[in-house]
Amino acid sequence: MSSTVAAPLVALLTDFGIADGYPGVLKGVILGIAPSARLVDLTHEIPPQDVLAGAWVLHTAWRSFPEDTIFLCVVDPGVGSARRPLALRAGGRWFIGPDNGLFSYVLAAASPGAAVALDDPRYHLPNPSATFHGRDIFAPCAAHLGAGVPLAALGSPLDLASLVVLALARPTWHAGTLSGQIAHVDRFGNLLTNFGPTLTDALLAEPALALTLGGEVIAARAATFAAGPDDAPFLLRDSSGHLSIAVRNGSAAARLGAARGDVVVVHGLPARIGELAR
Amino acid sequence: MSSTVAAPLVALLTDFGIADGYPGVLKGVILGIAPSARLVDLTHEIPPQDVLAGAWVLHTAWRSFPEDTIFLCVVDPGVGSARRPLALRAGGRWFIGPDNGLFSYVLAAASPGAAVALDDPRYHLPNPSATFHGRDIFAPCAAHLGAGVPLAALGSPLDLASLVVLALARPTWHAGTLSGQIAHVDRFGNLLTNFGPTLTDALLAEPALALTLGGEVIAARAATFAAGPDDAPFLLRDSSGHLSIAVRNGSAAARLGAARGDVVVVHGLPARIGELAR
Amino acid sequence: MSSTVAAPLVALLTDFGIADGYPGVLKGVILGIAPSARLVDLTHEIPPQDVLAGAWVLHTAWRSFPEDTIFLCVVDPGVGSARRPLALRAGGRWFIGPDNGLFSYVLAAASPGAAVALDDPRYHLPNPSATFHGRDIFAPCAAHLGAGVPLAALGSPLDLASLVVLALARPTWHAGTLSGQIAHVDRFGNLLTNFGPTLTDALLAEPALALTLGGEVIAARAATFAAGPDDAPFLLRDSSGHLSIAVRNGSAAARLGAARGDVVVVHGLPARIGELAR
Repeated sequence: MSSTVAAPLVALLTDFGIADGYPGVLKGVILGIAPSARLVDLTHEIPPQDVLAGAWVLHTAWRSFPEDTIFLCVVDPGVGSARRPLALRAGGRWFIGPDNGLFSYVLAAASPGAAVALDDPRYHLPNPSATFHGRDIFAPCAAHLGAGVPLAALGSPLDLASLVVLALARPTWHAGTLSGQIAHVDRFGNLLTNFGPTLTDALLAEPALALTLGGEVIAARAATFAAGPDDAPFLLRDSSGHLSIAVRNGSAAARLGAARGDVVVVHGLPARIGELAR
Repeated sequence: MSSTVAAPLVALLTDFGIADGYPGVLKGVILGIAPSARLVDLTHEIPPQDVLAGAWVLHTAWRSFPEDTIFLCVVDPGVGSARRPLALRAGGRWFIGPDNGLFSYVLAAASPGAAVALDDPRYHLPNPSATFHGRDIFAPCAAHLGAGVPLAALGSPLDLASLVVLALARPTWHAGTLSGQIAHVDRFGNLLTNFGPTLTDALLAEPALALTLGGEVIAARAATFAAGPDDAPFLLRDSSGHLSIAVRNGSAAARLGAARGDVVVVHGLPARIGELAR
Repeated sequence: MSSTVAAPLVALLTDFGIADGYPGVLKGVILGIAPSARLVDLTHEIPPQDVLAGAWVLHTAWRSFPEDTIFLCVVDPGVGSARRPLALRAGGRWFIGPDNGLFSYVLAAASPGAAVALDDPRYHLPNPSATFHGRDIFAPCAAHLGAGVPLAALGSPLDLASLVVLALARPTWHAGTLSGQIAHVDRFGNLLTNFGPTLTDALLAEPALALTLGGEVIAARAATFAAGPDDAPFLLRDSSGHLSIAVRNGSAAARLGAARGDVVVVHGLPARIGELAR
């Protein structure tokens, strides 16, 4: 086995886009500090300043990476303001970025072990700008962490209860009716609801499941995209485990005119599903 | 020479887009299994579920990669259906992906040495989903192959004659007339025909070559983009060897209103060109 | 420290886009020659054939990369024409690409140490095409340089004074009025002027600074995006040090209908600012 096995793995998630060279700049900084780092783009196409969208993509991806991966995440509308720069240990991985809710789903799923504010200037670039902490603070801290600097050396310890967590829309239950939201629309136009794996399995075990979105009732279902009906939206367990709405060889988002945040409702469910939604 | 020289090289081609994090997820899975793998994006912007477009990009690219490169290719409208997951040795490289025609051009150009169906669950992620074989089957098999697992261990041997091959549009010849198609439109708006290197060389040796596309006759030609006429489409030998139509500092596709699949015709050719088209 | 530390770092900047597989092809060629190379995408989304836009992104990025990084830059409308293929040492890094002005900002900021025309075919691919020197000349030369071939071996020495430099729009000064241009519009719609770090610092030290763009006068300013006014464009020192115009949680380009090349003017400035603009 080659010595590169010990090379730190840094996965990048930003809203920088890929036109202006900003993701490359982060990588240049990292490789200047940790020359053997392995770098993976998770995405740079989070809509500008859409912290919630960044949190979702991280949510559906981080478990697929090896233990000790360093996630460098920069969706940072508050750059230079009082929002804290953060490094975090959770779920066996490292997370670095602004303390603005970007790690909300991670924190909901994996108890954090420790967190620090990145306030030790020894691990920043000299004279950090007020507008590009990705380059000047987050990337160098990720690189130093990867190169062996302990988390605790990067800055002051933070009270884990003080970390910013977004109000994630949770499914709600009332008298046999389950309500939720479209949590994400992917490139194929698949609509992912906020009904997670456990709830989805229970819902798909219902023989007469029918979901309402806008004026439309969707009752068809399939185990795979290819098995969906010819010309109608259908329900599917997405690869992240969420109940989703798809159209075979087409876009459910376009077909249904649906977008993130739209409400989905399922009526007539047995009480035991309400237990799971609580 | 560093030890990384032995690190497997995995090149990725998908229709996942770069917004949702899916290509990053494949890489996370690969690096969890083969930590020293070198990863290269070929493209993730194949139009959704456009197997033929994926096949073309692979066709024009694979020869530029070193021997033993592993091409991990996922354009997979039939994911979870009966279509077979495939690993293939051809042209001194490895190809992994669905058996749906994605490797049609590779198979047409390079006799495959061996192929297997990826049906050994030891080399899949545990509990593979029905909707994301890229993550759960193809990426782990690519990683295991790169880490030294022999092809034959990944699954059951396949009859090479049984592999799915798309009906690739071939040039046709009738009484001095050569007919073909636009096989690809690239980002610059260049129109690549399906007249390959040998045919292109013969055509460009004709002193009075004139190609018809839509209502337009194109007879100008140039060896380079810069040498093309000021304000008219011209013929060019593309870098992949295909006869193509370009507009200097502009888009031939926009100028001619042309798209993939459009017919191109050349009249009045000598019989020896017909020999090459057969 | 792992042996990969010695692996050459190649950063790529092109106008190839990411759909057609061309950047992947460059990487395949590089890894065939320099298997341990580390590859970073700076951008492939330079607008087609927009040499000036490529020069700008390189300008704002190259200093963030380690010494000895090899920048492989291909925005090359003149491919195959008389324009020279170039390798260059400047600012402690290497730059490879067409001699068409792509390195104008680099040359303005860092005195080049040496330059060669890439005219030794031993370091090209065999039978280079006339239309894809990125693949056939620039990528292999970058790889050979990274693998240890000296610059001087790659081709004939060039007179440094003969290198092509674009006429970069410089700020001008007349009787208390400073005139400049929008030099770049980034993905967030921020408008970067061509007032560089020194000039920007001096301008922001003026208590009553007001910049005119189109019919609009912009006098608000902020140190960070988050501190900008609620609903008006404001002035900001960009992370590259340039004076820029931003809109909080929005696009200044859309708000002001502005584009690259638009003129910006500041009136009523003291003479010492004129000194800096000269």
